[in-house]
Amino acid sequence: MRYVIDFSEGSKEQADLLGGKGANLAEMTKMNLPVPTGFTITTEACLEYLKKKETMSTDIHSEIHQHVLSMEERTKKRLGDSSEPLLVSVRSGSKFSMPGMMDTILNLGLNDETVLGLSQKTGDSRFAFDCYRRLLQMYGDVVCGIDKNRFDQQLEFYKEKKGYLLDSEMQAKDWQKLVAVYKNIFLEVTHQSFPQDPYEQLMSAVEAVFRSWNNRRAVTYRRLHDISDSLGTAVNIQEMVFGNFGVKSGTGVAFTRNPATGEKGIFGEFLLNAQGEDVVAGIRTPKPISALETLMPDVYQEFLTLSHLLESHYKDMQDIEFTIENGQLYLLQTRTGKRTAKSAFKICIQLVEEGIISKNEAIKRINPTMITRLLHPVFEPNELKNAVVFAKGLPASPGAANGAVYFTAEQAKKASEQGEKVILIRQETSPEDIEGMVVSEAIVTSRGGMTSHAAVVARGMGVCCVVGCEEVYVDEFLTQARVGDVLVRQGDTISVDGTTGTIYLGSIPYIEGDEWQLLKTVTNWAKEGASIDVKANAETPTDIKTALKLGAHGIGLVRTEHMFFGEERISEMRKMILAENKQALLSPLERLKEFQKNDFRAMFTVLKEKSCTIRLLDPPLHEFLPQTEEDILHLANATQRTTSEIKHRIEELHEQNPMLGHRGCRLAITTPEIYEMQVAAIIESAIEVSQKDATLNIAPEIMIPLIGSKEELAFLRKHLEQTIQTIFAKMDQIIPYKIGTMLEIPRACLTAGKIAEVSDFFSFGTNDLTQLTYGFSRDDSGKFIGVYQDKLLVKEDPFQHIDEEGVGTLMKMAVDKIRAFDPTIKIGVCGEVGGDPQTIHFLKKMGVDYISCSPYRIPAAILTIAQEL
Amino acid sequence: MRYVIDFSEGSKEQADLLGGKGANLAEMTKMNLPVPTGFTITTEACLEYLKKKETMSTDIHSEIHQHVLSMEERTKKRLGDSSEPLLVSVRSGSKFSMPGMMDTILNLGLNDETVLGLSQKTGDSRFAFDCYRRLLQMYGDVVCGIDKNRFDQQLEFYKEKKGYLLDSEMQAKDWQKLVAVYKNIFLEVTHQSFPQDPYEQLMSAVEAVFRSWNNRRAVTYRRLHDISDSLGTAVNIQEMVFGNFGVKSGTGVAFTRNPATGEKGIFGEFLLNAQGEDVVAGIRTPKPISALETLMPDVYQEFLTLSHLLESHYKDMQDIEFTIENGQLYLLQTRTGKRTAKSAFKICIQLVEEGIISKNEAIKRINPTMITRLLHPVFEPNELKNAVVFAKGLPASPGAANGAVYFTAEQAKKASEQGEKVILIRQETSPEDIEGMVVSEAIVTSRGGMTSHAAVVARGMGVCCVVGCEEVYVDEFLTQARVGDVLVRQGDTISVDGTTGTIYLGSIPYIEGDEWQLLKTVTNWAKEGASIDVKANAETPTDIKTALKLGAHGIGLVRTEHMFFGEERISEMRKMILAENKQALLSPLERLKEFQKNDFRAMFTVLKEKSCTIRLLDPPLHEFLPQTEEDILHLANATQRTTSEIKHRIEELHEQNPMLGHRGCRLAITTPEIYEMQVAAIIESAIEVSQKDATLNIAPEIMIPLIGSKEELAFLRKHLEQTIQTIFAKMDQIIPYKIGTMLEIPRACLTAGKIAEVSDFFSFGTNDLTQLTYGFSRDDSGKFIGVYQDKLLVKEDPFQHIDEEGVGTLMKMAVDKIRAFDPTIKIGVCGEVGGDPQTIHFLKKMGVDYISCSPYRIPAAILTIAQEL
Repeated sequence: MRYVIDFSEGSKEQADLLGGKGANLAEMTKMNLPVPTGFTITTEACLEYLKKKETMSTDIHSEIHQHVLSMEERTKKRLGDSSEPLLVSVRSGSKFSMPGMMDTILNLGLNDETVLGLSQKTGDSRFAFDCYRRLLQMYGDVVCGIDKNRFDQQLEFYKEKKGYLLDSEMQAKDWQKLVAVYKNIFLEVTHQSFPQDPYEQLMSAVEAVFRSWNNRRAVTYRRLHDISDSLGTAVNIQEMVFGNFGVKSGTGVAFTRNPATGEKGIFGEFLLNAQGEDVVAGIRTPKPISALETLMPDVYQEFLTLSHLLESHYKDMQDIEFTIENGQLYLLQTRTGKRTAKSAFKICIQLVEEGIISKNEAIKRINPTMITRLLHPVFEPNELKNAVVFAKGLPASPGAANGAVYFTAEQAKKASEQGEKVILIRQETSPEDIEGMVVSEAIVTSRGGMTSHAAVVARGMGVCCVVGCEEVYVDEFLTQARVGDVLVRQGDTISVDGTTGTIYLGSIPYIEGDEWQLLKTVTNWAKEGASIDVKANAETPTDIKTALKLGAHGIGLVRTEHMFFGEERISEMRKMILAENKQALLSPLERLKEFQKNDFRAMFTVLKEKSCTIRLLDPPLHEFLPQTEEDILHLANATQRTTSEIKHRIEELHEQNPMLGHRGCRLAITTPEIYEMQVAAIIESAIEVSQKDATLNIAPEIMIPLIGSKEELAFLRKHLEQTIQTIFAKMDQIIPYKIGTMLEIPRACLTAGKIAEVSDFFSFGTNDLTQLTYGFSRDDSGKFIGVYQDKLLVKEDPFQHIDEEGVGTLMKMAVDKIRAFDPTIKIGVCGEVGGDPQTIHFLKKMGVDYISCSPYRIPAAILTIAQEL
Repeated sequence: MRYVIDFSEGSKEQADLLGGKGANLAEMTKMNLPVPTGFTITTEACLEYLKKKETMSTDIHSEIHQHVLSMEERTKKRLGDSSEPLLVSVRSGSKFSMPGMMDTILNLGLNDETVLGLSQKTGDSRFAFDCYRRLLQMYGDVVCGIDKNRFDQQLEFYKEKKGYLLDSEMQAKDWQKLVAVYKNIFLEVTHQSFPQDPYEQLMSAVEAVFRSWNNRRAVTYRRLHDISDSLGTAVNIQEMVFGNFGVKSGTGVAFTRNPATGEKGIFGEFLLNAQGEDVVAGIRTPKPISALETLMPDVYQEFLTLSHLLESHYKDMQDIEFTIENGQLYLLQTRTGKRTAKSAFKICIQLVEEGIISKNEAIKRINPTMITRLLHPVFEPNELKNAVVFAKGLPASPGAANGAVYFTAEQAKKASEQGEKVILIRQETSPEDIEGMVVSEAIVTSRGGMTSHAAVVARGMGVCCVVGCEEVYVDEFLTQARVGDVLVRQGDTISVDGTTGTIYLGSIPYIEGDEWQLLKTVTNWAKEGASIDVKANAETPTDIKTALKLGAHGIGLVRTEHMFFGEERISEMRKMILAENKQALLSPLERLKEFQKNDFRAMFTVLKEKSCTIRLLDPPLHEFLPQTEEDILHLANATQRTTSEIKHRIEELHEQNPMLGHRGCRLAITTPEIYEMQVAAIIESAIEVSQKDATLNIAPEIMIPLIGSKEELAFLRKHLEQTIQTIFAKMDQIIPYKIGTMLEIPRACLTAGKIAEVSDFFSFGTNDLTQLTYGFSRDDSGKFIGVYQDKLLVKEDPFQHIDEEGVGTLMKMAVDKIRAFDPTIKIGVCGEVGGDPQTIHFLKKMGVDYISCSPYRIPAAILTIAQEL
């Protein structure tokens, strides 16, 4: 086991061991790109250190030592040497990027002697002491836990005393004096001096970075992004290059394509005469990278070349950190760039068009959860006409949002927990703010650029974000933001447009986003050769149209009971339920039939020959009954009854456990007229629509819910087929149709092989099936499911992701039994888990033919299925 | 295929083909007993006849003809011969005895000529014409469907005209005249003469008997006794012998042991000078068989000898029909006699003691359903002291009952459907009355003997019955019964003691029967080597003692929630539920613990080392909350709260589907204190009881309900074991214990192999498991389950008999998975189906270790299990 790997030994495939940063530094070294020399201490070393209660083994110690010696040889510099001092950066780097979550120390190796050597060697003692004071602050913060504000305060005091406004006014002497002050802070807080031994500095810094794996920010971030706690971080030790080495120096970050829009071309920004953390922290507002073209044309051209090289090497958009030291370009990091959903789609499509990746590869790169973000919201154009602009900034993450303003993460979190929609406004955000950012509708900062902490994090979360609104004076202490004399106080409402970078006063309504074309391109690729169809759960023509636009193969679940809730309809429904005899039943049923026929005609007209599975009435009748005194009175008047008669009937229909009661097919067995009406409405309207267009071949699929035995379905099937035959005779036309059932009662799964003898198709109703298999009522389990999750007694909500072990076993049994009877019977899933990617993997293995979910989940489902090919 | 088998060719094993009667006639013929010659037309012939739309094939026709010829040869008589006429009986006989349900015709072969021949040959023309008129009436009824009352009326008119009171006053001339009248009835009703051709008579009679298989009485009887409709009946053609051939003749029925009490010795009755149907129909009251000893000592001795011979040949109590023709004894039937439950037990025990059958054979002969009847009710002795006797009769079927009097089967049925307890009083019952008899608490007749229709049917059904109350004048038309001037009208209440034959006025309370000793003998035999233990569902010491007395191996289910319903206890329970914090919870819990400890100590003291499985709290908490305003007020006062606070809490605890809600182990996961208290109470009281008797080794089994996953049980187990360890330390004693779970959630069955990793034992809770597997709430399914049964959509109530196809499949999976993990883990069943014989067969195949049911179902369960050995 080796704990330390030189950049020249590793490769980009070793992110597990070297972390993402280390692996890519190694890769770039292998590619002979201008990377400062260095080595990586592996994640294994970190894990061992943490496991051994934060003690570094002598093995790790001596390997680091060996690699430092080798670096010294290569660079002809020595750690602690006063004439040729080797300075290094110490950076964390785990397998998955966790921007800013862990710690970094720059300029390590400086002490009271080497700072003089650096000063002498560079002829720039201002630079040398600036570096030294930075080391003191970072080391103090990261290694010794000294509040970095203590250092900042002293700098502010010093500048005030001197009458300086900007850091650039600080001279060599000033920094030197400040270094003395900083060193005093060490003594004061830790009762020890700042360590002058560079080896001591190095080892302590490495340990501190190891420990930062478990700091609160990092843990929160990992939880949020589903990153395992057991990975550990690597540590990269690299020779320092200095972007703060005068006007021919600088540091920057650039993307090979636009991470917000996906547009082609280099996109980034840089700061002249600055060290890396100045860019990321957003303290100074950087220049766009294009400005480099005029300032240092050679460097700019070299950077363009290297960018292209990296993008085609990695076959994806890269996020590159670079430093220019006195006109010499160095690459400090490259990684696959984070991007917005829109940009992700656009870049994938571009890369396919450019022949760099295959369609298949493109599909695999799209995380299905991006789709919701792709279709991000925009403000109502009409509402925008009269909107009052508060400020403008950089459009860091697209979208539109409104909410109440809060100025600290803590306040934002608190307000959000009270149910308020919040917008977080900060001068700049830092990793400590993560919990407040997560709950915000939008994030606004007065400082920082497109790659600042706020911008990167917001894009990652798909949260609308505007940064660098420099005209806004943000007073976090007084909890207010001011532009001129316009004041926004804590709790005031604003609206934020992350796509344009505009902030408005007041609350502007927005509409959901709509990047249909990008989505369609990708889902169409995904549908090619997919083994599972994706259908929609939808009833209204609007929803059906949306579903088709989003790629649905058809409608897998029409919930006919949803059609009974309109005011006029529910009144007829109630009359039907109250009917005392068959005669009284017929007239409301006849009217309900007309409503249903209208709905079905509209449905078939939109769908044409696409498959359409219509589920007959499912819920217990008492769900349709009036609840309020007013409704009861209304119904009493409408039916010429007394309110007490109505109440009596409601009581009669009351059930102890309606979920297990008189509903679904059980209603049809006791009152066959309801399903007869529904089936007649389906068949008649299908015939009517197909009569208008002779080429149309409509074949409705009638689905009977809550079947538990072959006997039930056989009985209803026989009965309903008589109704259908009568209609065929009456209308003198025959159309194809299917009669199938849901698999939502455990007994139906257990006896599915027999039910298959009388069912043309099946669809799993995972909601009911999960309720019954767990014995959990969805309505009631709220009282204990939270405790279950806290105590880790359920891993995941079984109503969100299929419970593979329990419910899944039952489903597998059913599929096997049905297939054994007839391998060609179509089996689908129409519970909401049908749209859950995790569940889809499982269903695919099980061998279902289609899934059906709500329209907006369709593209994700299509992608998930394609990603498994 | 042969359709007709001679008595000399068959044997008792051929009941399928020859019917019970035919097979036994063949057997007796083979044994050379005095059986009149004859043959049997097989059930196959019947089935073919019915299948061919009631046409008799020429094959059957000619086979019958052949056998008649052969009979004629043996008897030297000929069918239709005027000097030596052969007369035969035509009797139905199916595989299972269906007494009186199908038709019989005697004296067939008589016509206007042969009647004269018979008269001449016997020298008794009164006898000959008596036989002829009987044939006319039976043939008219059975073959031609002429109401037999028409014949009876004419007889009554005739007797009235002549001033006769009794049939015996009728002379030869009288019968001759009546024959003419009867023949006129034929002409009048059927417009045809009575057929003079004996072959025509024979074939028509055979067809009529075939058809009688499907008459309404027979179909009802078969449904009631679970006899298949597809068996068909055989027809026995046998030479007539005449019990009505003068004073040296007679006919009777006898049992080789007493069918009511099981006492040894011949038991029966006979009528002098009568034909068989006179005894069965109960028209005349017969003499006890002992009277035969004085009247015809030789015949009596011969009969005793033959009875013993038959009993030891058949190895069971026989029910023998005999006829004495002019001093010559003939056996017309033998069959295993129907008997009361008590008699069945007693006879079985005697036969074992006599070395005739083995214990195993004895066990197999006891139908488990007899046990309930064995323990038949008796009146409260104290109440009897002041009871007013209405009448006395023959104690035909033991038991005690009270109810409202009805005089027709129809009225009795109607009243019973209204929920009334009814007693049927008739002059005599006939097969047409069967539907009224089934619903009656008791049956009383004014005529008939111990083997009359009423007596036989009542014993078979285990219904209390008194017959032959000759002092009672029953007027079915006026719907009243009178003894002297005491009148009982329709709807009046009487009490009937079937054990003593006494009828009382008014309603006398009774206590359930108690034949413990007989039962114990048989269940003890049954328990020898049984593979499945039978335990009881019981909590109170009384129930536990009853259970042990009835043979329970231990207690398989203590429902601790049953212990919370006492007035004082429920008040503490309610306080606990209302508790707002842990502190307020503790004091009521402490008091509940004391109650539980008292109960558990009593339980362990009774049970000693017998196994005891205690289920922790199962139902949702709101079941314990007050329902009425008064109770709410009471609770409010007791807890110093307002009623509206109480109501608010009740509302909070309300659940949409409590069956699927916050109950069982889910309560313990959110409020661990409840199970902690229960477990502490169990362990502490077990230690306390075992401390009183150092030899006692009490090992309580703690059962956790409603487990759906291994995680739940593992969590609770760990938690509760900490409680137990604390008690062991505190009391300085360690006792063995087990922690197991119910299998009542489908998911638990599906994942039973994993749950087995943390469960010491399992018990199927078939009630909940059936509810969830079917998705049927027991509380609500009443609204549709009736319709399901009517439409044959469920064969049987799945809460009564396990649903093998659905629930059973799930159980089988669970057992297999548990056994695969550890073949030694005990698996039981504690749902109520555990006591159902049909279910036990299934469970045994599945391989469960024990079943647990309510105490009174235990002996039947033990027997059922033993019968499978």
